[in-house]
Amino acid sequence: MKNMFIPSHYKKLKRGPQVILPKDIGIIITYANVNKNSICIDAGTGSGWLSISLAKICKQVYSYEIKEEFIKIAEHNKKIENLENLIIRNNDITKKIFEKNVDVITLDLPNSEKVVRHAYKALKDNGYIVGYVLHMEQLKKFFNKLEKYKFKNIICIENIMRDILVRKVGVRPSTKGIWHTGYLIFGQK
Amino acid sequence: MKNMFIPSHYKKLKRGPQVILPKDIGIIITYANVNKNSICIDAGTGSGWLSISLAKICKQVYSYEIKEEFIKIAEHNKKIENLENLIIRNNDITKKIFEKNVDVITLDLPNSEKVVRHAYKALKDNGYIVGYVLHMEQLKKFFNKLEKYKFKNIICIENIMRDILVRKVGVRPSTKGIWHTGYLIFGQK
Amino acid sequence: MKNMFIPSHYKKLKRGPQVILPKDIGIIITYANVNKNSICIDAGTGSGWLSISLAKICKQVYSYEIKEEFIKIAEHNKKIENLENLIIRNNDITKKIFEKNVDVITLDLPNSEKVVRHAYKALKDNGYIVGYVLHMEQLKKFFNKLEKYKFKNIICIENIMRDILVRKVGVRPSTKGIWHTGYLIFGQK
Amino acid sequence: MKNMFIPSHYKKLKRGPQVILPKDIGIIITYANVNKNSICIDAGTGSGWLSISLAKICKQVYSYEIKEEFIKIAEHNKKIENLENLIIRNNDITKKIFEKNVDVITLDLPNSEKVVRHAYKALKDNGYIVGYVLHMEQLKKFFNKLEKYKFKNIICIENIMRDILVRKVGVRPSTKGIWHTGYLIFGQK
Repeated sequence: MKNMFIPSHYKKLKRGPQVILPKDIGIIITYANVNKNSICIDAGTGSGWLSISLAKICKQVYSYEIKEEFIKIAEHNKKIENLENLIIRNNDITKKIFEKNVDVITLDLPNSEKVVRHAYKALKDNGYIVGYVLHMEQLKKFFNKLEKYKFKNIICIENIMRDILVRKVGVRPSTKGIWHTGYLIFGQK
Repeated sequence: MKNMFIPSHYKKLKRGPQVILPKDIGIIITYANVNKNSICIDAGTGSGWLSISLAKICKQVYSYEIKEEFIKIAEHNKKIENLENLIIRNNDITKKIFEKNVDVITLDLPNSEKVVRHAYKALKDNGYIVGYVLHMEQLKKFFNKLEKYKFKNIICIENIMRDILVRKVGVRPSTKGIWHTGYLIFGQK
Repeated sequence: MKNMFIPSHYKKLKRGPQVILPKDIGIIITYANVNKNSICIDAGTGSGWLSISLAKICKQVYSYEIKEEFIKIAEHNKKIENLENLIIRNNDITKKIFEKNVDVITLDLPNSEKVVRHAYKALKDNGYIVGYVLHMEQLKKFFNKLEKYKFKNIICIENIMRDILVRKVGVRPSTKGIWHTGYLIFGQK
Repeated sequence: MKNMFIPSHYKKLKRGPQVILPKDIGIIITYANVNKNSICIDAGTGSGWLSISLAKICKQVYSYEIKEEFIKIAEHNKKIENLENLIIRNNDITKKIFEKNVDVITLDLPNSEKVVRHAYKALKDNGYIVGYVLHMEQLKKFFNKLEKYKFKNIICIENIMRDILVRKVGVRPSTKGIWHTGYLIFGQK
């Protein structure tokens, strides 16, 4: 069966650690106002699917990753897409963010909430912070940190994609599918 | 209550006819490989939300609309976003597509299936056609046309967004919400 | 992994042909006012899961099935539950319904819409007809027949069950799951 | 617009405090093996919708409620349905359960987890405890208590009902709807 969660142009990319799926990447793009003028930071890089998707759209992307094995996969994927505006940094974003006047910061870490105070400093006014979190507990922690740092327009969502089967015998949703990947939380400086 | 379906940077745009929401626009972007090198066609323009979202990312967007009152709203929105790479055409796309070597064609018309044969000619190899359709019956018609014209990698989905409430008293999904906007169908030439 | 779609007291029952799951049986019970005074008809019997669930609650259940191999499975399951108020008939319900003054008629057949006119005669006033249908097309056919025979309070729904994982690492919905079984359509005479 | 969450036979019942909806009551019935031989306990009674739905099916239902104003509403509803096998007790179930050898205990209280140890004593072997909880945090507390008291076959679910519109113009899910009521958690002694 074809996998509707991986559109064909993503299939050439390697998958090492668990990736953020295109169904969630798309929402990050429209909800964080990602566009060709954007300067973005992404952490952790992982296999680089989100960083690469952003770099195909943005002016510049800085991607933070502490594990060298993941950086190798992401560099491999970057080469496939031939992207010069993606810089993958071997730095720990929970310690420091080097860039300033950033438009968007996306976070997919087990402890993303620790980055909120650095993100606040690095972001432009009205810039977006985005958390991709797996559990309700992490959502709550991240949310509370956004409130503490006075981020505005906080939105917490779950984006769910459903497969529809169109066949001679009739149209109906697919029996089985992916129900949950992660929650997305957005705040604006 | 804040509306999680309209992120704040969309709020400055006018809404005349029913718009495609950012939750669906995001999926169109990642599933049709929309990026800064893309040449896109969008029809019908309507209030222009999709055309504008594409133009903020792409090299060039051509948007077809037959109703002059809608073109006025879309031109107003284009000015707000200060986009020079968006051309709004007062032409009937079911009759003809003027452009060639296009990367992506997005269709939100009551009779989008009539555009499939023109789209096939206008698209580059591996270019994407996208239908935003409201009913099962239209999904079926569009799907059958894609099969007739040998489009590959056809994907039919429904993208559903769910609001999560994070409050002192506890975390839970919102009681009420938007359950359905339209179906999205993708094919690749 | 434990299957949350089959509560443990259902596990002793045999499964031959595809069964209606307890998640849908429960909705049939509350939406069709199934109670200890009810006289019910169910067709087709299949493995008998719905007939048996009804007979554990109702005064009397008549279950129609044309395939003898299915009747054997259903009779086996009836014995396990030790139900004397369930009569399994080897009759074609699309031809005739023998009973009168029935409270509830449940239909899970590829051509359930053909039973609507017989059902109308067999039901008491305010009695419920229930269709379990797989595709949008069949839902439409059944709906149109209910309108033709002046059934009132027509409700078309999809009942969706989602698994929640409660674990030390955090609470979140299950990644994968059953998204769709069938649609339920209810009408009242 | 007709309300698909309240089937017509429920409309005669009064609603005081927030009720458990028929979409959740149906799942409680099939998942907790509620049948005509069952002895059930329900707390808190509230408007009595769940107690009444159970009493229409079971041998005997005992319903605990501490607020006299709610008992009045529930007694009113009990009279409408003419149920002699429903006893509404003005007792605090978090303090004590009077009955023994019970088949099913359903709990919809802000602190249902406090009843788990009493429920364990009151239930027959293989009897079911059911919690209807509003937030992730309460779900977790209840789950942990079920594990502590060695309940088996624990299932945590969310039951979601979706309205399908069948109209001349086409078939599609309803735009808006109820997305969330509560979570259901089941355990077996």
